[in-house]
Amino acid sequence: MAGRRLKFWGWGYEGEGLSADEQNAVLRTFADDFGITPRDGGAMPALEDIELRAPRRAPPDSLAAICTSEPYERALHAFGQSQPDSLRIHARDFAHAPDVVAYPNNTGEIAAIYDWAGEIGAAIVPYGGGSSVVGGVTSDVGDVYAGTVTIDLSRFNKVLEIDDVSRSARIEGGARGPELEAQLKPSGLTLRHFPQSFEHSTLGGWIATRSGGHFATLYTHIDDLVESLTMVTPVGTVQSRRLPGSGAGPSPDRFVMGSEGALGIITEAWVRLQGRPMHKATMGLRFADFFDAARAVRAVAQAGLYPANVRIVDGVELKINGATDGSFSLMVVSFESSDHPVDAWMARAEQCCLDHGGTVDVDWRDNPKANLQGAVGAWRTAFIRMPYNREVLTPRGIISDTFETAITWERFEEFYHAIKSATATAIREVTGREGAVSCRFSHAYPDGPAPYFAFHSAGGEGAILEQWQAIKAAASDAIIANGGTITHHHAIGRDHQKWYEQQRPPLFGDVLAAAKRRLDPRGILNPGVVIAG
Amino acid sequence: MAGRRLKFWGWGYEGEGLSADEQNAVLRTFADDFGITPRDGGAMPALEDIELRAPRRAPPDSLAAICTSEPYERALHAFGQSQPDSLRIHARDFAHAPDVVAYPNNTGEIAAIYDWAGEIGAAIVPYGGGSSVVGGVTSDVGDVYAGTVTIDLSRFNKVLEIDDVSRSARIEGGARGPELEAQLKPSGLTLRHFPQSFEHSTLGGWIATRSGGHFATLYTHIDDLVESLTMVTPVGTVQSRRLPGSGAGPSPDRFVMGSEGALGIITEAWVRLQGRPMHKATMGLRFADFFDAARAVRAVAQAGLYPANVRIVDGVELKINGATDGSFSLMVVSFESSDHPVDAWMARAEQCCLDHGGTVDVDWRDNPKANLQGAVGAWRTAFIRMPYNREVLTPRGIISDTFETAITWERFEEFYHAIKSATATAIREVTGREGAVSCRFSHAYPDGPAPYFAFHSAGGEGAILEQWQAIKAAASDAIIANGGTITHHHAIGRDHQKWYEQQRPPLFGDVLAAAKRRLDPRGILNPGVVIAG
Repeated sequence: MAGRRLKFWGWGYEGEGLSADEQNAVLRTFADDFGITPRDGGAMPALEDIELRAPRRAPPDSLAAICTSEPYERALHAFGQSQPDSLRIHARDFAHAPDVVAYPNNTGEIAAIYDWAGEIGAAIVPYGGGSSVVGGVTSDVGDVYAGTVTIDLSRFNKVLEIDDVSRSARIEGGARGPELEAQLKPSGLTLRHFPQSFEHSTLGGWIATRSGGHFATLYTHIDDLVESLTMVTPVGTVQSRRLPGSGAGPSPDRFVMGSEGALGIITEAWVRLQGRPMHKATMGLRFADFFDAARAVRAVAQAGLYPANVRIVDGVELKINGATDGSFSLMVVSFESSDHPVDAWMARAEQCCLDHGGTVDVDWRDNPKANLQGAVGAWRTAFIRMPYNREVLTPRGIISDTFETAITWERFEEFYHAIKSATATAIREVTGREGAVSCRFSHAYPDGPAPYFAFHSAGGEGAILEQWQAIKAAASDAIIANGGTITHHHAIGRDHQKWYEQQRPPLFGDVLAAAKRRLDPRGILNPGVVIAG
Repeated sequence: MAGRRLKFWGWGYEGEGLSADEQNAVLRTFADDFGITPRDGGAMPALEDIELRAPRRAPPDSLAAICTSEPYERALHAFGQSQPDSLRIHARDFAHAPDVVAYPNNTGEIAAIYDWAGEIGAAIVPYGGGSSVVGGVTSDVGDVYAGTVTIDLSRFNKVLEIDDVSRSARIEGGARGPELEAQLKPSGLTLRHFPQSFEHSTLGGWIATRSGGHFATLYTHIDDLVESLTMVTPVGTVQSRRLPGSGAGPSPDRFVMGSEGALGIITEAWVRLQGRPMHKATMGLRFADFFDAARAVRAVAQAGLYPANVRIVDGVELKINGATDGSFSLMVVSFESSDHPVDAWMARAEQCCLDHGGTVDVDWRDNPKANLQGAVGAWRTAFIRMPYNREVLTPRGIISDTFETAITWERFEEFYHAIKSATATAIREVTGREGAVSCRFSHAYPDGPAPYFAFHSAGGEGAILEQWQAIKAAASDAIIANGGTITHHHAIGRDHQKWYEQQRPPLFGDVLAAAKRRLDPRGILNPGVVIAG
């Protein structure tokens, strides 16, 4: 890895992060507006601070050239980007770091690593961009394994083929968002899949976790963008046929999607591309009432217009991100097309919003910079910088986390109150202080929204990790009890497994277990994720 | 079943069918334009003509009230609507008819039938509307079973709940298209799923076979319309959570979809509804070249417009259906919306078509009856009557069948030639005569079309069933060899199983087999379909 080095303690590359001014602004807003006051901030952990146990196993000579046990590599691959990951990093809790990190160059080397791990009884943790916020790559697999081997897919980073007639490409599973878009660019096409983790997440990771992109409707989920895929398992390769559609039996692709490395590693996929957008328009609307805004989203979602964005953000989230004073909810609606002007679409969506009590914050007419203006632009700027907030907050004892779900419209309002109340109550009980709980919609369907919650609190006395766990458990219990999904696009990982098992039909859990026995008979792949025990 | 009785020998109710004039028109076109001349037509089979073996098993007393072994019921449930079904019906080949037909009223009765069948070693054939064109309900399960019990779901025909906020409904699996739409109608909402089999197919059957609706793009597949489902298996019930979207592990719904009764019976589902269309427009365009028309479809499909229809029909199909003289290919484009006028959408799609060499056959502007005019209207009329053709053709020794597939755009032209040539060659070799092979698109995706082929031929000397089998095998071999799917929306059934096993990743076949061992440990459910052996 020439050039920039990734932080092992947080988001992005070494040297990146919030400026001093940005840090002060975040901390001031937390303290002044929400009473969430920082403790004295600790320094970022240094490699020298960290105690790693001696690697329990060394690779055989045949794999030595693609394996490393260097401390930086082991520390980098010990965690993803979840709140508990961040808390443990700052507590210098790296006892579970992988013994070996492997960088295979091809599927033969992946199979050889499986064979070796299977023989010695080591666990395998597949690792794409390391952006999991749910413990999906956290190599904490318990003590029943003889060792832990993290397989880093970053050498699978090529676009292998572009078909500009069908608008598809064959891309390796370890390609990060910017890598694959750069390789697609000369064709004029784009995958147009932009999760917030885009910069540090991979195609294979997106497929394995059923990633959701930035766009709010239609072709934004990676599920819908996959034409076919190749997954290498310990007993061989699953390769599906490249097709625009098929009704031939249960979909093999849909069974692999969401398996989160528990059945195999997705080494490549044919994916559907789109033309680059040539026509764009954005508008911002204010709503005094968050539920009026939600009804406007419903109207647009049920109108069959398919906007690129139809997002609402409540006053708490706007205020905590310094975008507004929090006195209104914001709705952002945008359309984009590679083919045609979007005025007719915008005009109709605007009417839906006005019908539900919205007032214009940023007008879209003759306004190509609308997405940078007013509350729309202010929230957007904060959104882009959000991943860097945590390294400022965690060492100062501030819990700051998000979770997301989905629910049908007719249950939404009651659901919203139940989740918000359960989370706020848990914060109060666990930390002894008031916190802040906010909500926005990340995606909207004709039959329901995907609400995205954030919660923030100064930690109380004692271990913050346990405090976070108690708040997270209260929020997750409320989601399951009130009919939501434990995750809409963040995935299961180790953090959601308990609630996923409550959500999933028990007999389907048995089917997954039977699949794992067939494909991973030694049970070495990503233990504790999706298919436990 | 009060009132009309279903034909046991073909499509629809007794008394329905082509008029004498319609019959003459069909036969004349076949003979005069394609040299496909009829043999003397036999009469429809009568129940008295049919030899049924004595039922091998009788139900226990507890199930007697919901079971029947009446000859009409056994004959009706012996076959679906495939070409080989029709040939065997007219050959009075009913040896495999089910011993017992059960009409359960609730899931408890389904479980009791499973238990009884499991104990005596009988096979179960789930039966919705009986419209399978691929042998999915044909009760020909071989001789290893002690008997065959067909479970007819027609008492599961109710819409149980309508949620007009989220636009969803909970509907029983045995509800036929017209039944469920009639129950939805007072709400102003529609499932808007209109396969050609609509009148005699069921929600559960659609889900089990991954049905495709009449519309060409977007929300037309039943896969995308399912919020959650309930499947009763021999070891218990799989019930998924009702959600607008979820990324929690592999989708249980997508695993049930396409299982074609081999894992269980889908007794109910929450499905997504839409507003009834208030705005509609249709246009017809002529193309001298079928591939120019295909390129126009590609342009519209890649423009992000999502038309209700974007169908092309080649000259052979237009001519054989009496719609035109066959001198051009027809393209039909339509948009509809429950929310907004569709003029902007139509105008842009029209430009895509004109850019690719189309000329207007039926203009859409100020023309609410466009769908009834010109070649558009003529083909539409023929399309609606098509299911009745077979009972006219089969007894006259004319093979007339369809198959459908999907392929990405960049391979389409070569694929088209290969499939058409393989089919025409097989007809010539097998029957000793020239036949007719036609093509249209049933669905269009940004990355490829779903070509729908029809072939017609006078049978040669000897057994027509074997002739059909040889032609079907040649066409299916060509589809698999050229990278297509063995079915886009007709399903696997018994007729496609051989090619499905070539298409499916072998390890995924093993996963399906493992799932069946868990859910149907005695292997009694729909033997030979999707999961063989």
